[in-house]
Amino acid sequence: MAEEGSVHVSNKQVFLKDYITGYLEESDMCVKTDNTVHLKLPEGSNGVVVKNLYLSVDPYMRLLMQKFDTHGIFSHFALNSPVRGYGVARICESGDPNFKKGDLIWGTTGWEEYSVLTSTDDHFKIEHTDVPLSYYTGILGMPGIAAYYGFELCSAKKGETVFVSSACGGVGQLVGQFAKSAGCYVVGSAGSDEKVNLLKSKLGFDEAFNYKEESDLDAALKRYFPEGIDVYFDNVGGQMLDAVVLNMKYMGRIALCGMISQYNNIDSREGTHNLISAIFKAVRIEGVQVHRYYPLYPKFLEFILPLIREGKIAYVEDIVEGLENGPAALAGLLRGRNVGKHIIAVASE
Amino acid sequence: MAEEGSVHVSNKQVFLKDYITGYLEESDMCVKTDNTVHLKLPEGSNGVVVKNLYLSVDPYMRLLMQKFDTHGIFSHFALNSPVRGYGVARICESGDPNFKKGDLIWGTTGWEEYSVLTSTDDHFKIEHTDVPLSYYTGILGMPGIAAYYGFELCSAKKGETVFVSSACGGVGQLVGQFAKSAGCYVVGSAGSDEKVNLLKSKLGFDEAFNYKEESDLDAALKRYFPEGIDVYFDNVGGQMLDAVVLNMKYMGRIALCGMISQYNNIDSREGTHNLISAIFKAVRIEGVQVHRYYPLYPKFLEFILPLIREGKIAYVEDIVEGLENGPAALAGLLRGRNVGKHIIAVASE
Repeated sequence: MAEEGSVHVSNKQVFLKDYITGYLEESDMCVKTDNTVHLKLPEGSNGVVVKNLYLSVDPYMRLLMQKFDTHGIFSHFALNSPVRGYGVARICESGDPNFKKGDLIWGTTGWEEYSVLTSTDDHFKIEHTDVPLSYYTGILGMPGIAAYYGFELCSAKKGETVFVSSACGGVGQLVGQFAKSAGCYVVGSAGSDEKVNLLKSKLGFDEAFNYKEESDLDAALKRYFPEGIDVYFDNVGGQMLDAVVLNMKYMGRIALCGMISQYNNIDSREGTHNLISAIFKAVRIEGVQVHRYYPLYPKFLEFILPLIREGKIAYVEDIVEGLENGPAALAGLLRGRNVGKHIIAVASE
Repeated sequence: MAEEGSVHVSNKQVFLKDYITGYLEESDMCVKTDNTVHLKLPEGSNGVVVKNLYLSVDPYMRLLMQKFDTHGIFSHFALNSPVRGYGVARICESGDPNFKKGDLIWGTTGWEEYSVLTSTDDHFKIEHTDVPLSYYTGILGMPGIAAYYGFELCSAKKGETVFVSSACGGVGQLVGQFAKSAGCYVVGSAGSDEKVNLLKSKLGFDEAFNYKEESDLDAALKRYFPEGIDVYFDNVGGQMLDAVVLNMKYMGRIALCGMISQYNNIDSREGTHNLISAIFKAVRIEGVQVHRYYPLYPKFLEFILPLIREGKIAYVEDIVEGLENGPAALAGLLRGRNVGKHIIAVASE
């Protein structure tokens, strides 16, 4: 990498080779090392040039690897540009009066060492650096907002029963802790015994189970929720969602936050067959569209920062070093190989 | 039929012959004419004996013709007892201090001329008889409550777009009119051109279409809702629900009230594949469990009775004369042959 002060620097980048179907393989992406980037903005630009420090590895990214309609929320990846996702970055140069050189921000960026961001509409300045910077991809970033406001949608009350799927992930582990502090009984599902142990030992879940070892999800849910589920925070969709709907209590609430079980085969995704049970049980189901809550980010920070500083909330991260390991990290995430919020550490400053 | 004053009277009854799969045929039910009923309650009973005047023909009844789990809301029909459903009846004898001989009630009763009701927990005394008695099976009964409070769940605002399926049915025709009076743009779907015309000419819908003539429901919805749907009141489920989810607006609301398209094949019901769109669009979906609103019936009556008396709301009924025509009516309802709220007139007093 060339010295930062020069106009051009070399810029390692991760590209998607072609649109895919089925499970993402590491080989579907490639790392290009022969690119350079201008660190100087064009005259009059109100964008920014950033150095990426941490990149967030998130399930929704799989959806952008084919031409799937996200109703304008996301654009599918361009094949001739770096993959895009959330990240933490330092401003190298700014044409935006809200940001100055040296500021730290989080928001959408590229899977590359340096990015030119033409819009900073969805970017937040990082004001608090006494907490790990990587947290701004997770507990202090998009997943944290989704967990907090998504769980708030569920109006969980003390003594209620809460189920969280993908409970060890970047969102789920927070939802479980929020639910515990609301006085709920909380059960999580995850895809390995290691994660199940983590949920019970470190993340405060009352119970947890490995869904891969359950041949009958309905029976598993009835074992942990003999009286039914008041609140389900869904990160997986598919068969788990279908089994949960059958096991909801009267006037239960479901937050739909993600459907990772379906992302690899989104064009032939499974249907939810048990919605009729939502009629009999007056169940409410609501989609967690995280951008909706961005204006409430300051309120969320006021709530969460003290908990982090006082050690009252845990956050498990699974950090991979080096942009070149990004393709394997994302392919692994979609097979559930990560343990905790998956992050790529790109640079240390 | 024997004279009413005697202890025993003959009592024509409709039975389900056996549990069924697939479409209900008239021949799956039978009319028995050789039964009698005691018009005298046992000593100490707090039930009532009633003479049934109108019986309501409702889609959910099909679900009770097989051993389908309605989560305790309904019991499937017993084969050795008359079919049960909503109805309007006159009290012949009462052991319940809330009802006296001669009172009119509506609530669950049997498909027979006289019924002995051991519980009157879900029964309402009819206080207002200046409106048609048959209305207590529809606009003034369970369908009216479902339409009113189900639509209230949707929080429709002036200028919003509302779609109602099975729009000419006992619930749908009311939802459309409530939506119009809330200042919404309202489109209904129905299964015949006759119903479509009725929706536009008599029931005040802005637009209506015959879903059977649409090869592509998504395209049909885009034609009527180029900017998307704010509120969907779902009476049909299945493919229509799936198409609607794709066409909802940001923060749209869906009331799940019924799934008539699935009742004939409930054990192999279609899945809803597009719930992922509810995430991107922050859509809220809620089941309309009508019993939840029974305590609010007096408030609903205060709202709806003046509208009926002043001719400000229409209600289309499809009344069949004679209990012996009940099996054909119910089989026909499940094929969409009725036009308006389907009712059996059993007796005139």
